Amino acid sequence: MKEPYVAVVGPSAGTPAELALGEAVGRLLAEAGAVLVCGGMGGVMEAAAGGAAKAGGKSVGILPTASRLEGNPYLTIAVATGMGEARNAVVVRTADVVIAVHGEFGTLSEIALALKIGKPVVGLATWELSRAGEVADVIVRAKNPQDAVEKALALVPVERS
Amino acid sequence: MKEPYVAVVGPSAGTPAELALGEAVGRLLAEAGAVLVCGGMGGVMEAAAGGAAKAGGKSVGILPTASRLEGNPYLTIAVATGMGEARNAVVVRTADVVIAVHGEFGTLSEIALALKIGKPVVGLATWELSRAGEVADVIVRAKNPQDAVEKALALVPVERS
Amino acid sequence: MKEPYVAVVGPSAGTPAELALGEAVGRLLAEAGAVLVCGGMGGVMEAAAGGAAKAGGKSVGILPTASRLEGNPYLTIAVATGMGEARNAVVVRTADVVIAVHGEFGTLSEIALALKIGKPVVGLATWELSRAGEVADVIVRAKNPQDAVEKALALVPVERS
Amino acid sequence: MKEPYVAVVGPSAGTPAELALGEAVGRLLAEAGAVLVCGGMGGVMEAAAGGAAKAGGKSVGILPTASRLEGNPYLTIAVATGMGEARNAVVVRTADVVIAVHGEFGTLSEIALALKIGKPVVGLATWELSRAGEVADVIVRAKNPQDAVEKALALVPVERS
Repeated sequence: MKEPYVAVVGPSAGTPAELALGEAVGRLLAEAGAVLVCGGMGGVMEAAAGGAAKAGGKSVGILPTASRLEGNPYLTIAVATGMGEARNAVVVRTADVVIAVHGEFGTLSEIALALKIGKPVVGLATWELSRAGEVADVIVRAKNPQDAVEKALALVPVERS
Repeated sequence: MKEPYVAVVGPSAGTPAELALGEAVGRLLAEAGAVLVCGGMGGVMEAAAGGAAKAGGKSVGILPTASRLEGNPYLTIAVATGMGEARNAVVVRTADVVIAVHGEFGTLSEIALALKIGKPVVGLATWELSRAGEVADVIVRAKNPQDAVEKALALVPVERS
Repeated sequence: MKEPYVAVVGPSAGTPAELALGEAVGRLLAEAGAVLVCGGMGGVMEAAAGGAAKAGGKSVGILPTASRLEGNPYLTIAVATGMGEARNAVVVRTADVVIAVHGEFGTLSEIALALKIGKPVVGLATWELSRAGEVADVIVRAKNPQDAVEKALALVPVERS
Repeated sequence: MKEPYVAVVGPSAGTPAELALGEAVGRLLAEAGAVLVCGGMGGVMEAAAGGAAKAGGKSVGILPTASRLEGNPYLTIAVATGMGEARNAVVVRTADVVIAVHGEFGTLSEIALALKIGKPVVGLATWELSRAGEVADVIVRAKNPQDAVEKALALVPVERS
């Protein structure tokens, strides 16, 4: 409970390069003693949970499905919400900070929900947002997994760090 | 049940110009016989529900709050989810198509959730999305409320129109 | 919004006698100007919505499914939560008072959720509860649909009636 | 993921005797290698998580609140749903089997939701259910914590045990 909780959000399918980023982020979070929160399915979520597992860390997958057995095999704990995409709000609520790795529309919804409820978002090659031609510079950009994890942990509210 | 259901998503506070857009969209949807779906609170949601009410149309507000009495006064039906922002997924699931009017991060999450589950999104002066420097041209742009409603209704799947 | 909202909960399949009770309750609620809230599917939910429709009343079905087209055909408004049984909490949150007609375990969960959050429950031939051999006499028993609707409406908090 | 997941549901306040039952159940589940699932708050939930922690076991608390910091201090993992009582459905979905210890209406809703979706329920001095004067004998009764845990683990579907 006292450890930082960091959500890693990204596509449920991914290129080898994206998966490598996810795995590195998961491993570095575990090495830093953080709990990994993710959507529990495949792709970047699985890569990140796998990275955390290899480093002996803890992860929780908050699944859209009605069965926890559909989660990826690397999760410490799998939670079956049976709520579909509405679970994206639970992923970001549970985390202190969110790291977005590439990502499709599901990832974009998690970025937006996090920003809506005041959770900082660190981005690795993820969405860029603008309105009326003006860039909304609200995602903290990271250059690589090490940078993403450092920036994310620096953004965890003090009372939890 | 057989009418088109169109979600209007936008900020819970808005400038007079944004509220005027919301009201016009709500009115035009009602005149076209569509059911208005919204998040049920203030700002563009209230303006749209008010526009629908003035034209004798039906609206449903899917509230984040635990009490339906916190909804805006123009709703035909208010649903109290008590689920906070997780209700955004219910707003877009209930609709056949989504019209986004301006909007902050909550609106962005609704756009993303809609695109994730395959519901088309029509935008009026709303978010622009890009990745890796490439614009993701997934929102159907409308010039004005009339154009937004026409484009939205044209995107309702045939079996429901 | 200002009308009383009354949830009618009961089995998604039902005997002719149970369906007749549901239809009568729905009709009487509509005649009294109340909004019917239900789970939106078949059985007693459909019978109640049908009764409300025949009397020109309003009903909202809060569906467990991801598509609103799976709701019964009598609903004024169908909301697709895509959340399975978690939607039972939304049904009772939306209502001021709950009428339970017979019912299986889903109905029992709605009775329990209503009592948990302080919404009164009126029962027509529904569950009886006890603990440690003592009857928990928390459901207001009704003799027939007329009695159930009268008792339910009398239990609506004053500020909404 | 492969371990049995057993939910322990009970009141958020409890007598010393109830808390002692909860703690013993949590400890015995941990000793058997099961993951404890609970609602994450105080009372029997906290006692069970504490029992699991003392035996070196894993627990996950699925909280109704918007902050995971409101969970009890013994949880291995806390999930903040921000969904209020709708989270009860997630608690039972995540588990293979449910043990109910005494309990109020929230517990009753979890028993009912579990039975609705086909998860077996073992009861320790908890609710008794009947309809039309006939006892619905659907809760497997246990005499003590040891008996409850043995019966619960015997009810875990084979493919997960």
